[in-house]
Amino acid sequence: MCGSEEPSRVKLIGQMETPGLSTTRIAAFSDSVFAFAATLLVLNIKVPEVLPTQLTTELPRQVFQLWPQLLSYIMSFVIVGIYWVAHHVMFHHIKRSDRLMLWLNITFLMCIAFIPFPTALISRYGAVQTAVVVYAGTLAITGVLLELLWWYATRGHYLVERELPDRVIRLGSVKTIIAPCAYVLSIAISFFNPKFSIIFFVLVPAFYILPSRLDRHLLGTDGK
Amino acid sequence: MCGSEEPSRVKLIGQMETPGLSTTRIAAFSDSVFAFAATLLVLNIKVPEVLPTQLTTELPRQVFQLWPQLLSYIMSFVIVGIYWVAHHVMFHHIKRSDRLMLWLNITFLMCIAFIPFPTALISRYGAVQTAVVVYAGTLAITGVLLELLWWYATRGHYLVERELPDRVIRLGSVKTIIAPCAYVLSIAISFFNPKFSIIFFVLVPAFYILPSRLDRHLLGTDGK
Amino acid sequence: MCGSEEPSRVKLIGQMETPGLSTTRIAAFSDSVFAFAATLLVLNIKVPEVLPTQLTTELPRQVFQLWPQLLSYIMSFVIVGIYWVAHHVMFHHIKRSDRLMLWLNITFLMCIAFIPFPTALISRYGAVQTAVVVYAGTLAITGVLLELLWWYATRGHYLVERELPDRVIRLGSVKTIIAPCAYVLSIAISFFNPKFSIIFFVLVPAFYILPSRLDRHLLGTDGK
Amino acid sequence: MCGSEEPSRVKLIGQMETPGLSTTRIAAFSDSVFAFAATLLVLNIKVPEVLPTQLTTELPRQVFQLWPQLLSYIMSFVIVGIYWVAHHVMFHHIKRSDRLMLWLNITFLMCIAFIPFPTALISRYGAVQTAVVVYAGTLAITGVLLELLWWYATRGHYLVERELPDRVIRLGSVKTIIAPCAYVLSIAISFFNPKFSIIFFVLVPAFYILPSRLDRHLLGTDGK
Repeated sequence: MCGSEEPSRVKLIGQMETPGLSTTRIAAFSDSVFAFAATLLVLNIKVPEVLPTQLTTELPRQVFQLWPQLLSYIMSFVIVGIYWVAHHVMFHHIKRSDRLMLWLNITFLMCIAFIPFPTALISRYGAVQTAVVVYAGTLAITGVLLELLWWYATRGHYLVERELPDRVIRLGSVKTIIAPCAYVLSIAISFFNPKFSIIFFVLVPAFYILPSRLDRHLLGTDGK
Repeated sequence: MCGSEEPSRVKLIGQMETPGLSTTRIAAFSDSVFAFAATLLVLNIKVPEVLPTQLTTELPRQVFQLWPQLLSYIMSFVIVGIYWVAHHVMFHHIKRSDRLMLWLNITFLMCIAFIPFPTALISRYGAVQTAVVVYAGTLAITGVLLELLWWYATRGHYLVERELPDRVIRLGSVKTIIAPCAYVLSIAISFFNPKFSIIFFVLVPAFYILPSRLDRHLLGTDGK
Repeated sequence: MCGSEEPSRVKLIGQMETPGLSTTRIAAFSDSVFAFAATLLVLNIKVPEVLPTQLTTELPRQVFQLWPQLLSYIMSFVIVGIYWVAHHVMFHHIKRSDRLMLWLNITFLMCIAFIPFPTALISRYGAVQTAVVVYAGTLAITGVLLELLWWYATRGHYLVERELPDRVIRLGSVKTIIAPCAYVLSIAISFFNPKFSIIFFVLVPAFYILPSRLDRHLLGTDGK
Repeated sequence: MCGSEEPSRVKLIGQMETPGLSTTRIAAFSDSVFAFAATLLVLNIKVPEVLPTQLTTELPRQVFQLWPQLLSYIMSFVIVGIYWVAHHVMFHHIKRSDRLMLWLNITFLMCIAFIPFPTALISRYGAVQTAVVVYAGTLAITGVLLELLWWYATRGHYLVERELPDRVIRLGSVKTIIAPCAYVLSIAISFFNPKFSIIFFVLVPAFYILPSRLDRHLLGTDGK
């Protein structure tokens, strides 16, 4: 927090249009939005109403039937987690900010903070096409905005450190764009069978959580 | 965070009435309120209730009809974002605090945290005059409080660094006061046609997000 | 944040039972709870439901009738603000922590996070004795816990800096205990007339926000 | 925050798969989730609806009958507090992160953010077996994940400082595993009498809050 601010402040003088908005501050504000959006997801899981006379038979059954809510809670929490990780890795390299980058970031956060709604929709209606399309659409737009943010910050090393290797920039781009592509594909699939789209939703996070050959390949640590 | 605290602490001894409330802390607390108020906005968008037999026909229609909720979500999120940016730029320059400044800030945050209510009102009733007036009124008061905060902190360079150029102070004042003026104007317009007021609500953010000739003029980077 | 941690870490080795819980971290966690509790208050203000045919006549009337909700929102937001200021001033001086202090603080935060409930109660039922007693009772307990925290931390300069003047310790004690006393008094008053209690609720914050002769007297900056 | 980052950054180069995710950042994000989950608990306590004519007789009775909600609020708040303390003590020692540790932590936070649901369930249905099992089950899984996190970080001093004494590692392990064991036991007990399980829920926190002989024994400060 301290060491990393020193050098950036020097460079800021020339480039930053909005003084005072150090990338440290932007990252801290973004963290709060990520944390709240993730925690708000739990409000989708409502306590079932059961008559006092049916508690022993009906309550377990109704609680068990909350599994779609639980699944969508886990799914969305993990997705917010993935975006948080990606955002942090990017802001580890981004050292300067300007007005456009700032607003790309705020728009990206607007999508993150919106996630509780499509999550509620899909947990209420499940594999219905409308719900699937809204869910996948939100996540696709979120991913595209993150890709734009990274593209804008790295082209010509505009807002990142000069020494950042090109393969790290490329790895960030490729890994970030895969999610929106997958979500657009899942929208296409939903026209045939929305249930297959949901299988997609579960597979996309796995790609990001597991260490992948792609990482090693693009980072050039492949054959070593 | 570190470098900037060192010099301020020295000056604080003489002026700050409430020791322990460094401007860093005040900014961090404010950030949380901004982030939380923005994230709470999503709770206004309710999942529509549709009968199981009408899912394919009725659900898309009802989800589509949520567009006023979505529009007001985006509008308010962007406005919170604008105030966050303005607040941060100000607290980049504000180096000391006293009791009155502290309470001007808490009152300003009280307005920010209130924004979810007028947002819910306008997303429920749209271009009805009452909703428009409450929405514009809240944002006008919020802006006036920020203007007051800046005016109090900068008069005679009371709480800001001595070297802060006057044109930066003036830029802050002028840019901040434009929003409340626009909102008061939109209240006046609502007596003729509340729909025009909503067009205003969409235009005001654009003024803040786009880089303007005003910035260059007041910052004296005009002809260079 | 940096400069203040250096000296405290040295002293910590001997005294802190729970390593890793620097007072900086405790204060940051507390800040989040304060900010969330304050922002959650807005959820008490519900959008009124009005028939489409009655929008122009009924909606302004119903929105206007939300004034008790608005008043209790402001009242509770300001009270959370006061406790936040008091907590920060204390943690400016508290340099070490131990297990008991940690749990006094968590219990205090439990009361802060509870405030949205009595606020909802009083904004729903107004000057009904039950609501007044629950509201005043919560705030009295909150204040007593803060007083306990300060008493525990300062007796024999146990957890505060050795150089902290006794008059600062006394000022903290006296100012903190006044609120619970006032709230207990307002409970007593509610047996005669709950409306007078609410006047009390509005006056207590004023005492904390305005600079007082008490400050100058106890801080010894009276005649100088 | 500053001093502790310097040495860790050097070691990070070799080990951390996800650059930019310093343990400081992870801890800060976790803090927000803890604070928010704890503050959301208050939403379970609903204001009772009473007819205006029955205010003096019915309102006190109905508010008093909220005691199960209040009890579960306190219980869950204290449990979140305990996990926060444990998490902080662990991250005081954890100096590096890798992808698996990151996701163990996110999964752990997913359980913390889930706590408002079982709390709502148990405050609504009390000592009904389903509610008890869901509550104890959530807390057991949360505890197991924290144990896993600690085990993964400390085996062979993988992610912690090399000088960390083995007895501190063991103390962390033993203390963390006791909670899930107790909760599994309380699930077993619920088959006989769910009320006894709730007594368990109240006793477990006491074990963590009170300083114990176990601490002194495992820390080797026993006979000294």
